[in-house]
Amino acid sequence: MDRTPPLDPVTELLTTYNELNSTHIDTLPSPPSALEFLRFVARNRPFVVRGGASDWEATKTWGIESLKALLEGQSIQVAVTPHGNADSPTTNEKRELIFVKPWEEQQSFSEFIDFISAQELRSPSSSSSSSVPEVRYAQTQNDNLRNEYLTLFSHVDKDIPWARIALQAPPEAINLWIGNSRSVTALHKDNYENVYVQIIGEKHFCLLPPVAYACVAERELRPASYVRKDDGCLEIKEEAGDLVPFPTWDPDGDGQETKYSDLAQPVRVTLRKGDMLYLPALWYHKVSQSTNEEGMCCAVNYWYDMEWGGSFYPLCNFARSVGIAALT
Amino acid sequence: MDRTPPLDPVTELLTTYNELNSTHIDTLPSPPSALEFLRFVARNRPFVVRGGASDWEATKTWGIESLKALLEGQSIQVAVTPHGNADSPTTNEKRELIFVKPWEEQQSFSEFIDFISAQELRSPSSSSSSSVPEVRYAQTQNDNLRNEYLTLFSHVDKDIPWARIALQAPPEAINLWIGNSRSVTALHKDNYENVYVQIIGEKHFCLLPPVAYACVAERELRPASYVRKDDGCLEIKEEAGDLVPFPTWDPDGDGQETKYSDLAQPVRVTLRKGDMLYLPALWYHKVSQSTNEEGMCCAVNYWYDMEWGGSFYPLCNFARSVGIAALT
Ligand SMILES: O=C(O)CCC(=O)C(=O)O
Ligand SMILES: O=C(O)CCC(=O)C(=O)O
Repeated sequence: MDRTPPLDPVTELLTTYNELNSTHIDTLPSPPSALEFLRFVARNRPFVVRGGASDWEATKTWGIESLKALLEGQSIQVAVTPHGNADSPTTNEKRELIFVKPWEEQQSFSEFIDFISAQELRSPSSSSSSSVPEVRYAQTQNDNLRNEYLTLFSHVDKDIPWARIALQAPPEAINLWIGNSRSVTALHKDNYENVYVQIIGEKHFCLLPPVAYACVAERELRPASYVRKDDGCLEIKEEAGDLVPFPTWDPDGDGQETKYSDLAQPVRVTLRKGDMLYLPALWYHKVSQSTNEEGMCCAVNYWYDMEWGGSFYPLCNFARSVGIAALT
Repeated sequence: MDRTPPLDPVTELLTTYNELNSTHIDTLPSPPSALEFLRFVARNRPFVVRGGASDWEATKTWGIESLKALLEGQSIQVAVTPHGNADSPTTNEKRELIFVKPWEEQQSFSEFIDFISAQELRSPSSSSSSSVPEVRYAQTQNDNLRNEYLTLFSHVDKDIPWARIALQAPPEAINLWIGNSRSVTALHKDNYENVYVQIIGEKHFCLLPPVAYACVAERELRPASYVRKDDGCLEIKEEAGDLVPFPTWDPDGDGQETKYSDLAQPVRVTLRKGDMLYLPALWYHKVSQSTNEEGMCCAVNYWYDMEWGGSFYPLCNFARSVGIAALT
């Protein structure tokens, strides 16, 4: 009964996944039926529907002037950071990696949108950012389209029928995102089934399946926030509170990789005006953006509760626990 | 950053699964739609439909005489064992556990059915088996209803529409099972989505989810078969060939348990005439049976290919590999 020693299970998990799955995202010609959608949910695999939301009022009519008119006189909550790094692992002056949340402030919508547009058109993201004082991103993830931005809500679909029918629940949250190319959302995962709809500009998604746990170098980071000082500058302030478990590997950067990171095979997809993405629960995603000719990027997404029953969540959590053990 | 040492990941996997899932099987009032079915497939959870096949011609009309008439003059392949242990881990004279396949032989259908019925009615399984020379089970799993038993096929559904639509494929195999209470199918798993339909008598399923890998004491067993000697007796003959990885723990017995077996929470369900069971891919199942008043038990099952894409199979395989490592 002698056998060759088994492959390291984490390596085997990643290579088996890579063998059985493509890094090309499935593209559907039109929105799926609930049954077709559920097949993707069952496999926990993403897809994109090109132009799936082309006929939405938002897609057809939104722009700086129309949004200003719709949100006339209103103020919104804005995330402010020095480098577009809201909710990101960031190095402090002591060169330690900590988890930094943005400074949050209320701004009039028209001031906000003029700021991001002017910043973008004056100095697109490719140029040096040293002269840029701050980056603003409207990115509250608190069901803002049914609250802060209620006056815009009738311009998008109230929910995604195929997702609601398949998942048997209305969306938990519907969120609007408005920013420019300076903002990047760091690699992270959410406990939601996510239908992401591009309205203006482009979003560039880098996606990794939940099995890639051991690739992303999750660490327990001390929490901090940017705070605006009296002189208007932003400074990092550490906070009391629980450590934040967060991936520290950047699939586009270097540093922080683990011995398994090379086995991660990202799925990359760019959403353009009217495109829809199904981003499955627990998938890691890093998101960057490009603007339209007005210097803005705008998207709407629908978060549906994921399924906690069955084997999927326990197995993903198991991959995480074994990954932690394999890396320490 | 000091933390309490994490729970053993295998223990955590099993307790998380148990917390999120019930040991009571879902019971549907009538066969599901394809969408409803796919929700169970997505969660990899079983369900039963009481009376879901009550109106099948087979359920309504099959019995010893009608089957004899339908299979008049035909011979069938029969699995013969001394104790009803076809395809089972069995102890040889040297007290080693080996994997023993049944002796297979062609018998006239009417002789076979008279044998199992007479054996059952003369001596139900509760009494001592010492006087019983052999146990017979018609259990070829080679799509026998579309081959050997073709003359019976029009009495059952050609396929299971909700499964075919959800899984986008016809059944890979449709199998007929005929035996008596002396046959027990040992705990094992299959790479198939299984729709199991009880026609006559009862089947008692003991089910364990794929996460229970570390509970079932899989071992690599040497292959063997029963062979009939000239005097008619059955004797074990070991074979050259690959070792057979097979669970050795019996959830109803003792011995062979692992340090994790206590965390296994079996789902138990008895199928009666006309009941249907969805037995999800990769679930361990042990199956025993009770007969009707004629002394026979008969079932039909539909095997559909499981989904290999996505994360489910790689994660189950990972749980197996980590389980092996945790137990050695
Ligand atoms: O659009 C972004 O910047 C991030 C989107 C995101 O993280 C999400 O939809 O969960
Ligand atoms: O009915 C039996 O004895 C076993 C059934 C089984 O193992 C199966 O359907 O896969």
